[in-house]
Amino acid sequence: MPMPASVQQGSGQLQITPSFSVAVTGARESSLDSGVQRFTKQLSSITGIPFRSNTSGSPVLEVHADHGREAVQKLGEDESYELTVTDSGAKITAATPLGALHGLQTFLQLVRITPAGFAVPAVEIKDQPRFPWRGMLIDVSRHFIPIDVLKRNLDGMAAVKMNVLHWHLSDDQGFRAESKKFPKLTAMGSEGKFYTQEETRDLIAYAHDRGIRVVPEFDTPGHSRSWFVGYPELASNPGPFTVENENGTQSVTDPTREETYKFMDKFVEEMAKLFPDQYFHIGGDEVDGKFWDSNPKIQAFKEAHGMKTNQDLQAYYNQRLEKILSRHHKTMVGWDEILHPELPKDIVVQSWRGQESLAKAAQQGYRGLLSYGYYLDLMWPAARHYAIEPMSGAAANLTPEQKALILGGESAQWAEWVTPENVDSHIWPRNAAIAERLWSPQSLTDATSMYERMHAVSLQLESLGLTHNSARDRMLQRMAGTSETTALRVLADVVEPVKDYNRWDDAKGPIDFHAPLTRLIDAAYPESDTALEFADLVQRFLHSGSKDQAAEAQIRTWLMLWRNNDAKLQPLLRQSSLLEEDIPISQNLAMLGAAGLQALDYLDKGQTEPELWKAQQLAVIDQARKPVAGLLLQVTAPVQQLVEAAAGTR
Amino acid sequence: MPMPASVQQGSGQLQITPSFSVAVTGARESSLDSGVQRFTKQLSSITGIPFRSNTSGSPVLEVHADHGREAVQKLGEDESYELTVTDSGAKITAATPLGALHGLQTFLQLVRITPAGFAVPAVEIKDQPRFPWRGMLIDVSRHFIPIDVLKRNLDGMAAVKMNVLHWHLSDDQGFRAESKKFPKLTAMGSEGKFYTQEETRDLIAYAHDRGIRVVPEFDTPGHSRSWFVGYPELASNPGPFTVENENGTQSVTDPTREETYKFMDKFVEEMAKLFPDQYFHIGGDEVDGKFWDSNPKIQAFKEAHGMKTNQDLQAYYNQRLEKILSRHHKTMVGWDEILHPELPKDIVVQSWRGQESLAKAAQQGYRGLLSYGYYLDLMWPAARHYAIEPMSGAAANLTPEQKALILGGESAQWAEWVTPENVDSHIWPRNAAIAERLWSPQSLTDATSMYERMHAVSLQLESLGLTHNSARDRMLQRMAGTSETTALRVLADVVEPVKDYNRWDDAKGPIDFHAPLTRLIDAAYPESDTALEFADLVQRFLHSGSKDQAAEAQIRTWLMLWRNNDAKLQPLLRQSSLLEEDIPISQNLAMLGAAGLQALDYLDKGQTEPELWKAQQLAVIDQARKPVAGLLLQVTAPVQQLVEAAAGTR
Repeated sequence: MPMPASVQQGSGQLQITPSFSVAVTGARESSLDSGVQRFTKQLSSITGIPFRSNTSGSPVLEVHADHGREAVQKLGEDESYELTVTDSGAKITAATPLGALHGLQTFLQLVRITPAGFAVPAVEIKDQPRFPWRGMLIDVSRHFIPIDVLKRNLDGMAAVKMNVLHWHLSDDQGFRAESKKFPKLTAMGSEGKFYTQEETRDLIAYAHDRGIRVVPEFDTPGHSRSWFVGYPELASNPGPFTVENENGTQSVTDPTREETYKFMDKFVEEMAKLFPDQYFHIGGDEVDGKFWDSNPKIQAFKEAHGMKTNQDLQAYYNQRLEKILSRHHKTMVGWDEILHPELPKDIVVQSWRGQESLAKAAQQGYRGLLSYGYYLDLMWPAARHYAIEPMSGAAANLTPEQKALILGGESAQWAEWVTPENVDSHIWPRNAAIAERLWSPQSLTDATSMYERMHAVSLQLESLGLTHNSARDRMLQRMAGTSETTALRVLADVVEPVKDYNRWDDAKGPIDFHAPLTRLIDAAYPESDTALEFADLVQRFLHSGSKDQAAEAQIRTWLMLWRNNDAKLQPLLRQSSLLEEDIPISQNLAMLGAAGLQALDYLDKGQTEPELWKAQQLAVIDQARKPVAGLLLQVTAPVQQLVEAAAGTR
Repeated sequence: MPMPASVQQGSGQLQITPSFSVAVTGARESSLDSGVQRFTKQLSSITGIPFRSNTSGSPVLEVHADHGREAVQKLGEDESYELTVTDSGAKITAATPLGALHGLQTFLQLVRITPAGFAVPAVEIKDQPRFPWRGMLIDVSRHFIPIDVLKRNLDGMAAVKMNVLHWHLSDDQGFRAESKKFPKLTAMGSEGKFYTQEETRDLIAYAHDRGIRVVPEFDTPGHSRSWFVGYPELASNPGPFTVENENGTQSVTDPTREETYKFMDKFVEEMAKLFPDQYFHIGGDEVDGKFWDSNPKIQAFKEAHGMKTNQDLQAYYNQRLEKILSRHHKTMVGWDEILHPELPKDIVVQSWRGQESLAKAAQQGYRGLLSYGYYLDLMWPAARHYAIEPMSGAAANLTPEQKALILGGESAQWAEWVTPENVDSHIWPRNAAIAERLWSPQSLTDATSMYERMHAVSLQLESLGLTHNSARDRMLQRMAGTSETTALRVLADVVEPVKDYNRWDDAKGPIDFHAPLTRLIDAAYPESDTALEFADLVQRFLHSGSKDQAAEAQIRTWLMLWRNNDAKLQPLLRQSSLLEEDIPISQNLAMLGAAGLQALDYLDKGQTEPELWKAQQLAVIDQARKPVAGLLLQVTAPVQQLVEAAAGTR
């Protein structure tokens, strides 16, 4: 995963033995050499075989790159590769080390245990990406994400062939990149949590080694309170400002003062050197015009320049900003809102609003990226992200030339509700589905097959050091105060956090970004595998006219587990301040279990259940459908189907 | 754990809130400051509360050390501390930062989740260690253990208040410490796996920060083939030598050549500077005299010097070695075999043979350490290690002065059968039981209570980064080739590796230290919690005259799980080369489950089972008792008890 563009199965398999070794031929490059070293280490971790560096004999895997890669990775650099595996050896051929690195990842995903040992099936793969820009945004402002956590996520991105880290380095709640010219940005705007320039260079090198570009985002003129803590003169209204939500005065950048542009010029000059990538993201989203409206000087400026709307003012700001970027040899990227005909055609527009705005930009000759539909913080199931197609909707009707302007997309991990502890589980494995959408052919749309591959890759991602599964265990143990968390896991396995921005809405008021995120809602996976499996079983059972006995037996096992679980779980929930709020949801699960079992009994006997019973069960289901402690009980709908089937209403 | 010397429970509890903070008073020292930082991080990890550095208000925990600690930690430095917790605050008072660090660990172990949030119960603790030398030996020669794995084990040692890392740096299979004067030691004797001097200094500093001394061991004149690969002139017979077991010529050091002592003098001079600790371990165990017997020059030397036995020759070697150590200001430590009246009284004898030899040494005025009974590689249950008392046996009859010569003990992790992946699970949590034996009062001997505390501390150790539990999951997933390992875990939960040196004996021939250690025997915990719990249940049930229905219900649940597990597990076992060997043991478990269930049925009906049935079941049990693939089915004995009870023979 992502599925290659072309796969031809061969016969036989290549054994992975202790004498396995790799030879690099063709162009030599340090990032390929270190890629091969990582590959060998990872293969060793997958198989448990300690490969020896001094193996004699001919190499089993040959890795060949025709020529080197750019010192600074470019958009659109050749990433294609071919991988041939026979029973006697394997070869990866690529134009550049970038393709070779992808080929190594594909090889790793093919390794499996067989009765004859670890092996890779014979295969011929020709592969290249559909889109040249396949990225992930990580917000490090709302909650700071340490370098080591970013690094393991870069490993995960490389494993699913993503090639851009969009580093959302500043927002209202924190400025995370050290500036030597403007030290107060982090000294006053980060609460001490930021990346030094040395750390930044180290992370960029780490990403480069893995074929990943790093595009920084410094969001402006909105989402920029953290700049104003140290430099209040940049703001449109007087401070003082703090990064704390509770007592922070809001503002946006003042685009009417020349000093603002002097500041930005110096700042961009410094950052342009720190971040070697060609592209530089200036944000530009969600600018609240009321801070401009309430400042008479800004109003006077607008009038003097014949600007009618705040959009005009932002366009003016963006044009001047673009010139600064240009002078420092950077290409501007920004969110939908920056789109304006006066900006040059080489900028890139990132759409959080939908394919419509992507298509609109392309029609005007602008390149675009899709992020709408790829927001990981919305807690959607992987299949829903997977179904979002950049070329669908209005984009489907573009001319070929316009279509070529759509560069790809980016998933987005906004960090309002994550900590270093649980951020992996908010990203993985769902991010792999988005990676596949952006790499693999458009025709690949079967969600069932995607889930199979996603589960396989999820296991491999944990072995790379990601903690999307293991962290949940630790968090459950913390809530429970014991390692005996079986009953708690039964509950955790069938719940999901509320979707979209419902958690925000429920919070009613500013979020305290210093609060612990240690509740069940923080540990629960965004998508419940158990609920998915249970819903499938119920579908199968009902479609068989209640005759599929194997399915029924499995359904019963689940329902009994849930019905009996509450009694075991209650004492635990009561003794923990973190779990008390989950008492009702555990009770709801028990009632759903009981309702489902009774429905099955009616169905088995061929009886239609009495009306009163049905009314009672639907009341239970109605209650179970309501979020409790920010959690949805995801097995409610299939139990309802059972009850309705028993009532003869389906 | 270890249990403090004196604990007085108070009333109420101290809440851990986001405004929790620590103040250090008294002597300031960097290792205490960094200890407090680690403490805060760890408390944050336990509670999930992101404590803020800039908290105002008075500190909740005060840490006070009367005076500083030695720059190089000394044997017997004051490690005592007092910890007082009330509902309004806590205070740790200690003579030195060493004691304060211990107090912080105790505080962490007291944190628990309550209905009112995280809290520490009010308590007054006065604590000091029973023995001044509480160590763990880690063998890094047989299998190299990387620095990061050693570091997390140092964290574990600090958590259970152990204070000596005995670093077994050389043995036949590898020389792991870089020598600049004798570079061929690692260049030819380590297969590239060794610690640079910089890494060594870093590890020593890391240990010092945690109140842990680092004592290096360079084993000589036996167990020293790795020295001879680069320096064959040190050996008693001609080489060539390699570190490979399969084709390695054996030898021991030649103690008759003056060049040997010149070499050792230069070597010790260099290592004495690298390792600041006062003590320096020269091994001295298991010297195979046949290499001396077969060398005519050595025979002639012995005759010329009037030596009758090879023991005399070793004693001569040790005396000269001791003078070299002494010249470089080091105190010699060695295994039992070095004990010889001509050696000065300040050396320390480490006993792998038993309390007898410890007592013998003490009677002759030598200080001693016990390692007999603390060998973690023997796969004993924690309770068995816990019952080994340094002051028992011959040592019980020593005079008070002689008893004072017994400094403590060391657990020993010999590395024939471990890799960096599974070494943690061979050490933890059992090592905590040995740590308690060496710290806590001699009167503390209740194994049941020890196990309770050990399970609690085990959870905390994982949160420190140790992988004794999580690594097993990864290994099972590798064997199974899937993350769906429920049925495999059912089997893994009731097996243990064969005990003592049976795995060696079964290996028949030299061990290949490059072979993967990826079988179920490598993943299985040395001690099965499930088997322990099941045996307890059967005891309870039978002692109740088969009347304890709650126990019976739980026994039935286990037995049914085991009886039904094989059918689920077989397909998995058959498809993996790593699991095929476990097919018979899974079948045996199913048969045990069935036998146990039938026995319960007979007991329920009050019938005595027929003789033939009993004979059949005992045959099953007999088969189940035999090791399969190096694994013992640890629930066999309790099932046998059920069968015998049903047969009326108990």
